[in-house]
Amino acid sequence: MSSHEAPLGPKHRLVQQARLLARERREREAAGLAHMEGVRLVEEALAAGVEVAYLLYSPDLAERPRGAELLCAASARGVPLYRATPEALERAADTQTPQGVVGVFRPRPWALDDLGPGLVLVLDNLQDPGNLGTVVRTLEALGGGGAVVAGGVDPYNPKVVRGAMGSLFRLPVVKLGLDAALRGLRARGRRIYVADAGGALSPWEATLTRAAVVIGNEGAGPSPLARQEADGVVSIPMVGPTESLNAGVAAALMVYEALRQQA
Amino acid sequence: MSSHEAPLGPKHRLVQQARLLARERREREAAGLAHMEGVRLVEEALAAGVEVAYLLYSPDLAERPRGAELLCAASARGVPLYRATPEALERAADTQTPQGVVGVFRPRPWALDDLGPGLVLVLDNLQDPGNLGTVVRTLEALGGGGAVVAGGVDPYNPKVVRGAMGSLFRLPVVKLGLDAALRGLRARGRRIYVADAGGALSPWEATLTRAAVVIGNEGAGPSPLARQEADGVVSIPMVGPTESLNAGVAAALMVYEALRQQA
Repeated sequence: MSSHEAPLGPKHRLVQQARLLARERREREAAGLAHMEGVRLVEEALAAGVEVAYLLYSPDLAERPRGAELLCAASARGVPLYRATPEALERAADTQTPQGVVGVFRPRPWALDDLGPGLVLVLDNLQDPGNLGTVVRTLEALGGGGAVVAGGVDPYNPKVVRGAMGSLFRLPVVKLGLDAALRGLRARGRRIYVADAGGALSPWEATLTRAAVVIGNEGAGPSPLARQEADGVVSIPMVGPTESLNAGVAAALMVYEALRQQA
Repeated sequence: MSSHEAPLGPKHRLVQQARLLARERREREAAGLAHMEGVRLVEEALAAGVEVAYLLYSPDLAERPRGAELLCAASARGVPLYRATPEALERAADTQTPQGVVGVFRPRPWALDDLGPGLVLVLDNLQDPGNLGTVVRTLEALGGGGAVVAGGVDPYNPKVVRGAMGSLFRLPVVKLGLDAALRGLRARGRRIYVADAGGALSPWEATLTRAAVVIGNEGAGPSPLARQEADGVVSIPMVGPTESLNAGVAAALMVYEALRQQA
């Protein structure tokens, strides 16, 4: 932390690795590592007990009280800390304002048995990282049991990590194929619904406690397998001429309805 | 439409005006005009009977069937059509892919009496155009009565227009100060709730039929006036350690709950 060595430059191996982890899904999956940045997110990761591989920070971070506290907390957990030049930090960052700190962490390898008792959302080929981030944040806030990501955007895409605002460090998010996910959830006693237009049930008619709901791709909707395997199709009644809700909104309404039924 | 004149160049007055309307709120408010782009949005505006001041289009738009149909429909309504060079269209556009057409329209001057019977959301100094666009889309889809925009982001910001996906051409969206909005809504027989943490009521305990709900600013929450004037504070019960929901999600949950109570 109070290293006497020169700060890392933009060509240092760890700076390059952080940059790649922010940009390349393949790199994240091969290394089992992911990228985060900003004081708030790194604080949340440490508080959640996430394994942080290392932090890169700007020399002035330690001069701000909150920054100094962060470095202290990371150091106490044995996280390797590296000062980096402003150019190196910019290179390692995903946004233009990484707020003085970029981190590399090891996502937990969640499994179906880690899911909590609340509603589980199965995200069937979701494409928009902003949607996925909001879904994870909303699931945690409203007491959902977790998410299964079946294809589509990588849950450790930096935009998802930012959008989830720390929830991704705490909520079980399982990566699994759709078929295995549906069979595994049913074997664990969950009723499977799929959210889609033209279904027989409104959300308040479905029993969403002890259930999983499949949310389909933003354009194509749920895949045929999901429709075929589901115990029922749940539709949010559309009053206006709009064709569909934003996938993140549709997901949030399901989690809300499950919470209401529980209460 | 099959004009023999040369297409408009990037310095033409209408191209410059469209560009300014996309970028400057002051220009929109001074002229009472707004900006839209893309085949789908312009189709929705025409279908909704919105007054379109003019369209700028690329020469190749007329060669695509859907583009030709669009120009034909606009022409039948007496909308002035101007071919523009690709450079001019790019200059007039807000995004990098305006899909061959940029339009200028005159938003309807909605008033409180135009609001429908469904739930009304009062957006108290909302800042994020993406949030506002989603809120307008969700309100229309779930049968809300409309929105009152009390300060914050301009509802005719091009990002809101895009995010609302056509709903902004149909749903009543009233621009009004918070004080006048709350008094006017109450005078029209609506109960006023404010969505905030620590309230006495969960959404399913509040009577959201014939009501208005104030949704606060993304960072600061609802303003003191809203808290003071409201008949009750509605809180979405938070289970996880997350501090708050995304404002667009919170708004969507209220409209959903009103729809459920109605049904």
